[in-house]
Amino acid sequence: MTQTTEPAVSAPGGTAQERVDAWLARFEAALAARDVPAAAALFATHSYWRDLVAFTWNITTVEGPAGVADLLTGCLDSADPSGFRTTEPATESDGGAEAWIAFETAAGRGTGLLRLTDAGAFTLLTDLRELKGHEEQEGPRRPQGVAHGAVADRLSWAEERAREQAALGQAEQPYVVVIGGGQGGIALGARLRQLGVPAVVVDRHDRPGDQWRKRYKSLCLHDPVWYDHLPYLQFPKNWPVFSPKDKIGDWLEMYVKVMEVPYWSRSTVTSASFDEATEQWTVQVDRDGEQVTLTPKQLVFATGMSGKPRVPELPGADVFRGDQHHSSQHPGPERYAGKRAVVVGSNNSAHDICAALWEHGADVTMVQRSSTHIVKSDSLMEIALSGLYSEQAVAAGVTTDKADMIFASLPYRLLPTLQVPVYAAIKERDADFYARLEKAGFWLDWGEDDSGLFMKYLRRGSGYYIDVGASELVANGDVKLAHGQVDHLTEDCVVLEDGTELPADLVVYATGYTSMNGWVADLVGQEMADKVGKVWGLGSGTAKDPGPWEGEERNMWKPTQQKGLWFHGGNLHQSRHYSLYLALQLKARYEGIPTPVYGLQEVHHRS
Amino acid sequence: MTQTTEPAVSAPGGTAQERVDAWLARFEAALAARDVPAAAALFATHSYWRDLVAFTWNITTVEGPAGVADLLTGCLDSADPSGFRTTEPATESDGGAEAWIAFETAAGRGTGLLRLTDAGAFTLLTDLRELKGHEEQEGPRRPQGVAHGAVADRLSWAEERAREQAALGQAEQPYVVVIGGGQGGIALGARLRQLGVPAVVVDRHDRPGDQWRKRYKSLCLHDPVWYDHLPYLQFPKNWPVFSPKDKIGDWLEMYVKVMEVPYWSRSTVTSASFDEATEQWTVQVDRDGEQVTLTPKQLVFATGMSGKPRVPELPGADVFRGDQHHSSQHPGPERYAGKRAVVVGSNNSAHDICAALWEHGADVTMVQRSSTHIVKSDSLMEIALSGLYSEQAVAAGVTTDKADMIFASLPYRLLPTLQVPVYAAIKERDADFYARLEKAGFWLDWGEDDSGLFMKYLRRGSGYYIDVGASELVANGDVKLAHGQVDHLTEDCVVLEDGTELPADLVVYATGYTSMNGWVADLVGQEMADKVGKVWGLGSGTAKDPGPWEGEERNMWKPTQQKGLWFHGGNLHQSRHYSLYLALQLKARYEGIPTPVYGLQEVHHRS
Repeated sequence: MTQTTEPAVSAPGGTAQERVDAWLARFEAALAARDVPAAAALFATHSYWRDLVAFTWNITTVEGPAGVADLLTGCLDSADPSGFRTTEPATESDGGAEAWIAFETAAGRGTGLLRLTDAGAFTLLTDLRELKGHEEQEGPRRPQGVAHGAVADRLSWAEERAREQAALGQAEQPYVVVIGGGQGGIALGARLRQLGVPAVVVDRHDRPGDQWRKRYKSLCLHDPVWYDHLPYLQFPKNWPVFSPKDKIGDWLEMYVKVMEVPYWSRSTVTSASFDEATEQWTVQVDRDGEQVTLTPKQLVFATGMSGKPRVPELPGADVFRGDQHHSSQHPGPERYAGKRAVVVGSNNSAHDICAALWEHGADVTMVQRSSTHIVKSDSLMEIALSGLYSEQAVAAGVTTDKADMIFASLPYRLLPTLQVPVYAAIKERDADFYARLEKAGFWLDWGEDDSGLFMKYLRRGSGYYIDVGASELVANGDVKLAHGQVDHLTEDCVVLEDGTELPADLVVYATGYTSMNGWVADLVGQEMADKVGKVWGLGSGTAKDPGPWEGEERNMWKPTQQKGLWFHGGNLHQSRHYSLYLALQLKARYEGIPTPVYGLQEVHHRS
Repeated sequence: MTQTTEPAVSAPGGTAQERVDAWLARFEAALAARDVPAAAALFATHSYWRDLVAFTWNITTVEGPAGVADLLTGCLDSADPSGFRTTEPATESDGGAEAWIAFETAAGRGTGLLRLTDAGAFTLLTDLRELKGHEEQEGPRRPQGVAHGAVADRLSWAEERAREQAALGQAEQPYVVVIGGGQGGIALGARLRQLGVPAVVVDRHDRPGDQWRKRYKSLCLHDPVWYDHLPYLQFPKNWPVFSPKDKIGDWLEMYVKVMEVPYWSRSTVTSASFDEATEQWTVQVDRDGEQVTLTPKQLVFATGMSGKPRVPELPGADVFRGDQHHSSQHPGPERYAGKRAVVVGSNNSAHDICAALWEHGADVTMVQRSSTHIVKSDSLMEIALSGLYSEQAVAAGVTTDKADMIFASLPYRLLPTLQVPVYAAIKERDADFYARLEKAGFWLDWGEDDSGLFMKYLRRGSGYYIDVGASELVANGDVKLAHGQVDHLTEDCVVLEDGTELPADLVVYATGYTSMNGWVADLVGQEMADKVGKVWGLGSGTAKDPGPWEGEERNMWKPTQQKGLWFHGGNLHQSRHYSLYLALQLKARYEGIPTPVYGLQEVHHRS
């Protein structure tokens, strides 16, 4: 929490609850009077308002009173907010006050988190929870399941489901097509179904969950269970902390079934085009060999935030006699016992694959091309995550929803500063470990500004390994280390730029992925890809995340420069939390509710 | 709550908490001193102690100080209880005090619910929650899912699962075989897996959930969602109140998968025998055509508390030209549009099938053979269930676990008295409805002592219909009504004893089920069936539930006269709640923990 020297605007004398109540009353009065300067003056000079679709029909963060004034000038009339109140007692916090709040807008009901200092609001998070008149059917509103009484020729649930499935894409067109049925597509599909928005999730695999099942055998989630819940249905209390890939695959498959997500397996979108006149997409789908044309109004790319596999084009790749494949295609270690494996790359997949190959008796060399950020999983859990996502957090009343909201309430601008001490603590805690890694020749980094793993993820989605054991193999030399770029391949060697020859029966390219934008280029065309621009990243001006500052993830979960074109995904946490806001945006458009967008992002980079 | 004129034994002066604390302290002191009379004197003359496996390794209720003394004389030394305390503040209740408690025994940890009057304990429920040293891996103890570090030749989760499945029944024998994979077998299988007891659930259907899917098309659960949760994984908040049969089938199928229940589909137990010398069963299983011999120590019948379909043997059944089948085999109404259907019986299945046939254009006659208890579903929900299992109960903090415990804390002896006013209120509320039914000639009853539906369920498992619409069809004559026993069939008629001829293209025998005991006779032999005796019922001395009074459901979830032979099942509520106690009994035996049984039930009836 930051103290400023602003004049007091929030009745500093009282309890936390009294100060928050006073602030909310003044804020609401200013908003009701459409007095933008008065409302803006309630924010500290150094302050942030992050809005998730509630006021702005956008995901956006504004800074300081000037930012607040700009936001309100843009959307106060259409939002027409009212009814601000706390939903549980405000708490003292670091000399300030903190409060969970609720409010209404013209279109819906929202919640939020306010942090107040004597100088005014320091951070305000507002988020839309539901649309008036379109509340989800849960709890007291849950469906009956059976219509009591006798009704001639009624369809049973199973018959109605079968009818719906037969009609989808034939007699009935979906309003939304979601490309990709991993956790992102599935979470969004579940929410759209609950909201009654006709949709279909199109996925190329044989069945839901194969996105995980088909990855390398030793893969377990690197994020813990408390961080990974899907909407509506939490993992049970006996679910493992780090879910094995096949187990999470089974969970996703059952989730699709019991949540009745409209889902086409063995289906590939082959092309899509948008008609500006009719504002409608034409989407060609190869559905298990059958060609189907879908005509949705909205098209969502949920093809993996990492985008398309990046495979280097290497001279000699055609003469190399052994196996070579991208990490996403790696079949597992069994067939490589006693073989020489070269793994190009040093991030998560590279480490996991090296360890699994070593465990199965391969001779393994990792080629490190640039420095990598390493954090031990236990340290990450205990120091970085445990306050929000852990058994202790659950016991302390920090539900998944609260944890998501607390995390969302921290402006991206502030996050690096908040993260630096976390990673400093980890560096100290695991000093011996890092010393051993460096002694083995491993190139370590902590992010350009020492802000660690999560900022790397948010900025570029790469550049790190959450250590679950492989680093020890690197440190002790069981996995050999080479450095530099690959120059070319020979019949049986990987040759580095410095001339080092690495004999190989197998080459794994753990070389990452390109921007999701690449999928748009493939399916809709380069022109459309250029129009919407780069996907992911904050504009931090660090490696692989060029400026200017965006304030939010580029193009994710919010309107893009192309009407009807959306991007969705991320890890399980993001798929869960942001699917809510994307689903509400789509629902509002489906129902014809006005959705004037404040602060539509501009395109600064094409890919 | 009943007031007595006993001398005060529980410091009547203080707050509820003080009175409960004082009582618990005196109770614990008496138990620690092995002073049985002193402990028994803490119970009111008119009082009940129900124990679920914690003290008695049995499910048993004792009455009054004498019963308490008998129980304690039988098991105080082996139980060695201590650490009695309240787990949340005691509450005033009807002039007495009520408190949630916890305690320990030699073997485990228990919880309970105490109702105290000035005369001493009025009801005490004690139940075993976990065995010391064998706590379930949940919450802070949940499995890691991945073994961090590099381990040569490790098996992945999927490989270990595949190995286990291949070994089960071949290289590795289950300790427990559960016959029947409906909600009962599944819930027990899930708990045994969590407890690490090698087991297999054997089921004849193609896949889990078919027990429901294969029933008549219009079937929805008659119990509401709050009553129906399975262990570990609750239905989501958007799950329908009354689950359609295919939807509950899908839920059970996914539950088996994600809870990793060891489950053999398409498998039928063909015979079983017990070797008293080795104390081991030999169970022959036809596993999808392959003959497998299993040798468990424990055999659980979870074949449906209703037991085997009861099909009347009618003269002329061989000459009847139309379709005829038991309600459990009814394929649904579609093929009977325009046909004449006679449904023999007037309970749940009969009503549901009549309504579905009418909805699809059949000409339907219901043959009522004896009076039937009818309750409208809404009334049952609002008046009988809403305090414990409803959205309001959830909002009031009555979790499923608390609801189960509150319900379990009401002794069966008292239940009829508590139920009479519930059904009196329903009778008054729906007076018009009942008048119309009677005017149409329907024979109504309310149970022999006017105690209504739930007592009928607990005593005999039959004799009622929860009205979800069919009664209106009976009242208005859309479904025709005939009365009396069927005498015989002709080529195209059902002929009643009074000579009435009912022309028919279809006869459905909605004639109920026999005791689960019948399955024992079929698979193990009549001698074994006679040894363990009748299953289900309280010994109430009412129709189909002959005395003497048992105090608990006969043979359900507790030791029987045959070592290693158990019965499990009931509705979803019972399958959820009592699977815990059965699983703990099996786990204790698996681990070699002493389980001296107090009050093993005697056999008074053979079937």
